Amino acid sequence: MIKAGIIGATGYAGNELVRLLMGHKEVEIKWFGSKSYIDQNYADVYQNMFEIVEDTCLDDNIEELANQVDVIFTATPQGFLAGVLTEEILQKTKVIDLSADFRMKDVNVYEAWYKIEHKSPQFLEEAVYGLCEINRADIKQARLVANPGCYTTCSILTAYPLVKEGLIDPNTLIIDAKSGTSGAGRSAKLANLYCEVNENIKAYGVTNHRHTPEIEEQLGYAAGEKIVVNFTPHLVPMNRGILVTEYASLHKKADGTYPTYEEVKAVYDKYYKEEKFIRVLNKDVCPETKWVEGSNYVDVNFKIDTRTGRIIMMGALDNLVKGAAGQAVQNMNLLFGLDEAEGLNLVPMFP
Amino acid sequence: MIKAGIIGATGYAGNELVRLLMGHKEVEIKWFGSKSYIDQNYADVYQNMFEIVEDTCLDDNIEELANQVDVIFTATPQGFLAGVLTEEILQKTKVIDLSADFRMKDVNVYEAWYKIEHKSPQFLEEAVYGLCEINRADIKQARLVANPGCYTTCSILTAYPLVKEGLIDPNTLIIDAKSGTSGAGRSAKLANLYCEVNENIKAYGVTNHRHTPEIEEQLGYAAGEKIVVNFTPHLVPMNRGILVTEYASLHKKADGTYPTYEEVKAVYDKYYKEEKFIRVLNKDVCPETKWVEGSNYVDVNFKIDTRTGRIIMMGALDNLVKGAAGQAVQNMNLLFGLDEAEGLNLVPMFP
Amino acid sequence: MIKAGIIGATGYAGNELVRLLMGHKEVEIKWFGSKSYIDQNYADVYQNMFEIVEDTCLDDNIEELANQVDVIFTATPQGFLAGVLTEEILQKTKVIDLSADFRMKDVNVYEAWYKIEHKSPQFLEEAVYGLCEINRADIKQARLVANPGCYTTCSILTAYPLVKEGLIDPNTLIIDAKSGTSGAGRSAKLANLYCEVNENIKAYGVTNHRHTPEIEEQLGYAAGEKIVVNFTPHLVPMNRGILVTEYASLHKKADGTYPTYEEVKAVYDKYYKEEKFIRVLNKDVCPETKWVEGSNYVDVNFKIDTRTGRIIMMGALDNLVKGAAGQAVQNMNLLFGLDEAEGLNLVPMFP
Amino acid sequence: MIKAGIIGATGYAGNELVRLLMGHKEVEIKWFGSKSYIDQNYADVYQNMFEIVEDTCLDDNIEELANQVDVIFTATPQGFLAGVLTEEILQKTKVIDLSADFRMKDVNVYEAWYKIEHKSPQFLEEAVYGLCEINRADIKQARLVANPGCYTTCSILTAYPLVKEGLIDPNTLIIDAKSGTSGAGRSAKLANLYCEVNENIKAYGVTNHRHTPEIEEQLGYAAGEKIVVNFTPHLVPMNRGILVTEYASLHKKADGTYPTYEEVKAVYDKYYKEEKFIRVLNKDVCPETKWVEGSNYVDVNFKIDTRTGRIIMMGALDNLVKGAAGQAVQNMNLLFGLDEAEGLNLVPMFP
Repeated sequence: MIKAGIIGATGYAGNELVRLLMGHKEVEIKWFGSKSYIDQNYADVYQNMFEIVEDTCLDDNIEELANQVDVIFTATPQGFLAGVLTEEILQKTKVIDLSADFRMKDVNVYEAWYKIEHKSPQFLEEAVYGLCEINRADIKQARLVANPGCYTTCSILTAYPLVKEGLIDPNTLIIDAKSGTSGAGRSAKLANLYCEVNENIKAYGVTNHRHTPEIEEQLGYAAGEKIVVNFTPHLVPMNRGILVTEYASLHKKADGTYPTYEEVKAVYDKYYKEEKFIRVLNKDVCPETKWVEGSNYVDVNFKIDTRTGRIIMMGALDNLVKGAAGQAVQNMNLLFGLDEAEGLNLVPMFP
Repeated sequence: MIKAGIIGATGYAGNELVRLLMGHKEVEIKWFGSKSYIDQNYADVYQNMFEIVEDTCLDDNIEELANQVDVIFTATPQGFLAGVLTEEILQKTKVIDLSADFRMKDVNVYEAWYKIEHKSPQFLEEAVYGLCEINRADIKQARLVANPGCYTTCSILTAYPLVKEGLIDPNTLIIDAKSGTSGAGRSAKLANLYCEVNENIKAYGVTNHRHTPEIEEQLGYAAGEKIVVNFTPHLVPMNRGILVTEYASLHKKADGTYPTYEEVKAVYDKYYKEEKFIRVLNKDVCPETKWVEGSNYVDVNFKIDTRTGRIIMMGALDNLVKGAAGQAVQNMNLLFGLDEAEGLNLVPMFP
Repeated sequence: MIKAGIIGATGYAGNELVRLLMGHKEVEIKWFGSKSYIDQNYADVYQNMFEIVEDTCLDDNIEELANQVDVIFTATPQGFLAGVLTEEILQKTKVIDLSADFRMKDVNVYEAWYKIEHKSPQFLEEAVYGLCEINRADIKQARLVANPGCYTTCSILTAYPLVKEGLIDPNTLIIDAKSGTSGAGRSAKLANLYCEVNENIKAYGVTNHRHTPEIEEQLGYAAGEKIVVNFTPHLVPMNRGILVTEYASLHKKADGTYPTYEEVKAVYDKYYKEEKFIRVLNKDVCPETKWVEGSNYVDVNFKIDTRTGRIIMMGALDNLVKGAAGQAVQNMNLLFGLDEAEGLNLVPMFP
Repeated sequence: MIKAGIIGATGYAGNELVRLLMGHKEVEIKWFGSKSYIDQNYADVYQNMFEIVEDTCLDDNIEELANQVDVIFTATPQGFLAGVLTEEILQKTKVIDLSADFRMKDVNVYEAWYKIEHKSPQFLEEAVYGLCEINRADIKQARLVANPGCYTTCSILTAYPLVKEGLIDPNTLIIDAKSGTSGAGRSAKLANLYCEVNENIKAYGVTNHRHTPEIEEQLGYAAGEKIVVNFTPHLVPMNRGILVTEYASLHKKADGTYPTYEEVKAVYDKYYKEEKFIRVLNKDVCPETKWVEGSNYVDVNFKIDTRTGRIIMMGALDNLVKGAAGQAVQNMNLLFGLDEAEGLNLVPMFP
């Protein structure tokens, strides 16, 4: 059995990680780290785990933890892992980081968007960006995996084949994203109160949301050049789910016409047909967050508008699964040579 | 592998049954029956099943179905199974009925509350009421299992130990129940539209809801006498979940005092301590539907009010799992001698 | 124009009071008191008031405020008003208190249930309980009005005629109440986060909620004796609205039968037919919170169960209007001899 | 008193019209037309109107109705009014049409997008597009007002000043719109059931929603040329509210820089500063649908992204008020020379 430790086990992503790992045949959780609830029963913090998890919460002593486990998941605030990570830790254990600390290669970009100093930039080069369907080979060899953001996973996977194959102009890309409220975390803030979120929708982080450079970097690799995009997140009155609606100008073909549905579909299929967790929907079916809830799927589809010369791409995932804990488990499976889907054969729950 | 067929696979309970059976190691579904969607892809009706279920919907020819499978689940309107069930079918296959057709022993009670004629009362005596924790031994021997109603399962299990052990006067029992909207089914009715249900709560079926006689019959067996109760369901703006709040007068002990917390707790533990799917919560923790969502658990607890001489009992479950499909799978496991929890090791999903 | 001041203007009830008073022809608000937001624009705290309210928030100096206005509304935590109220203030201005400080006559009951010392019990006798439909005459003469609680208003009005006329045994009364989340206030608490409340229902304050003694006192006056009741509140995933479902044993008539629908209806009509804000619904129509949202109405109805000898009474109101700010305005209208409905001719908003 | 008749009074927009007109000092409703509920009490169909509206529903005989009233509101399916309108009717009464029948000048565009034949194109030229803030002068003279669509009102008003003043390239305009579910109407369709909408978000009508040509026509007038835009609506789990997020490329100024915040703000103020119902929010405040709920306001704001050269504009309104019934009342006020805000001084309700 693989021994796992979680730092930040009492956030929503941490709790989801516990849920998934409890159903994973090859893993046992040895450390439920939670700074805020040290010595309390984990099941008192998350009553869903009553009679399932018997452990009490431990602190965030990552050096000690590295001695005890084979893999550490950090579901922690930005800056935590960068502040404590050492070569020694990485020599003892694998680390899968659900924060943004090692997602970007350029420390200046990190510091500019996150407004904090990066304390261990020496690991940036080594860290592998854990978007499994794109970086599978590298992940298998990694010691340190930077698990992608929830918006980012959805935004990138929805557009990736078309950027990679040059069907769209990546600098025309506009990503309008909509997220459930669990993405805002479990801290007690007025803006996240039920009565403030319910029966309401709003944009936030307009022009400056921190997932923007992460999207730009990864899609830039696909495009083979630096790109800039517009990314606008919105808060939706629901618990889980992210939907992205992406707009881009299609390149015309040599004959002056736009690519057909079949041509675009073939490009998506080239990259995703064999991917278990990416479902390219049937023609004219729009992704809905409810159809992937509780599962590790990303549903994608698109529609061509020859009137405006644009393509509208859509993608949906569960922000706590494929957008966080599920992808972390998928990365773990890759790191340890397990079946990539172990623990992730989750049928979406409806309704 | 056990071969299973579902009649009524495109209702919410039917779809939940598919979800659970897809994760069950010993079963394969051979028949997705759906009168309304014959010849359509099941995954077009329930997009969550895209790339998971490849089958098309079949009709409700139960005689043919009985030739092909080991167990039939009927998630059908009242009267359907009673109208088609034959001795021949029961000789070929087990039947687990999620409708009310065989839940009550007295055909007059059925006809009085359901306002329809019962077409095969000859099977009423044989049918076993499939409340697993209470009737486990009988279920194992059964050919025909009457899977309990959602409100009923929650209402009975919450009060059962106290009725059985005579701590409360069963005729003072008042059950105030609150249900999510999936209990109302997937048919297109004005009263179930989003804008009619959302931001709203109401009682319905006051004094005459059809789960009442089912509760009275089963708790009457526990009490050893006929009883009448008040049962009032309410519609709550959420997808899943039932919460019951039950009130009853406590019998005083010989010394004229009311039973203590510890004494009542001991009675609950006597019946439920070894039950995997019934969780008696810690003192003063009130059950919440969200903590059992997606799982087969029932969470119960109670509070004694010596001012009024009453006890307030509370129970919560997921109406589509323990209240329908989960319990049906639990019954199937019993029928076929499998681990009772096979396919049901579902960690509740939060949030 | 009547000059009004609000202490606690930035809670949900305070903001609703502002909404209602902005539509009141005879009042102008001169003081938006808010300890937490002093010197901030009120419209920055409540963006709905942008370009409607130009004022900034002031402190809670009630003595100074009493010099400036004709009426003070206190929408403040328990204990605030009791801690600052003086005879001098009451000689200068009317006070309508939305907290519980002056709702109960017996200071010991207050201190036992609220767990705080009452700092000015000398005003308890004088204070008038502001349930307009019951205490109209006294309210008109009052200096200090104790505006009833939201649960309380709904609970009392739903049962009052039957208690008053002796149709039910008041000690059998069980009140199962369901409330929207705005009743929990606008403070940033984990339990009130969107993801904790949404898709969830739970009971809380079981056997010890602080509205219990208030209900018992007022219904006790109607019964002509001390009574005890069970009151259980539940938190429902919606913003506004309270629904109560009340159970009580009916007294039989001299001939040994239970009262008929018509007889009970006549009793409700005796008290409520002329009341603008209490609507006794047509036979078999169950109150729904959505049908009164945004208005000052209480909808009530009942159903007799001759099987169990009980009557089920139901009532619905908007907790922020008739349960708080609306009733406060109604009380103000009575205090100043205005049309009782001025500013309250609000058509419920649906959906 | 102005006498008004409503055809289609039992849809959500019709009911909202009733709510608003009940609070209008100069109007009385003489005709509650509803094909589906003829002879039923209006208050039985909309229980919020109990003891407020005493009338029964009448048919849709517009010729008879024209004899009885001064103004007719048609909140009817596409094609109804075009099928029955005559010169005789317009000589007797004003008509405000909440359907799309007379919104577009080009009958071919109407027939292409709506897929139905237009039965009275002879009135298209005369009809005035009832976007009050833009066409105020023409509306005052009109006999027939085409009340704008909900998405349309929000989409146009959010971008109008920048298109009119040439700050943006209108052909780069992308409108990503999000709507509450009341926009889908009150008919019993599976897709609008609570369990299908709740906890879910999806796009629909991608590239072909029928509000697209209406937006293009009106913004085309502002641009002084024909334009095409992308418009993508989404269904959000809430009752009311529309939010639009609009993206467009900014024209650079002569000096090669982009316009500043102050320069863009000045353009918005030029058109909207004196408009009571359009609120240009303070810098960096994003519109939220909840802050306008129940009112006739449109909240707009914008953010400049110099990285991409685009501006992100946002607008929010209540789809049943400014997006339907409220604007219809505003149009009526203009038609009859009343204060434009009469009956519309509605403070948004929060929460």
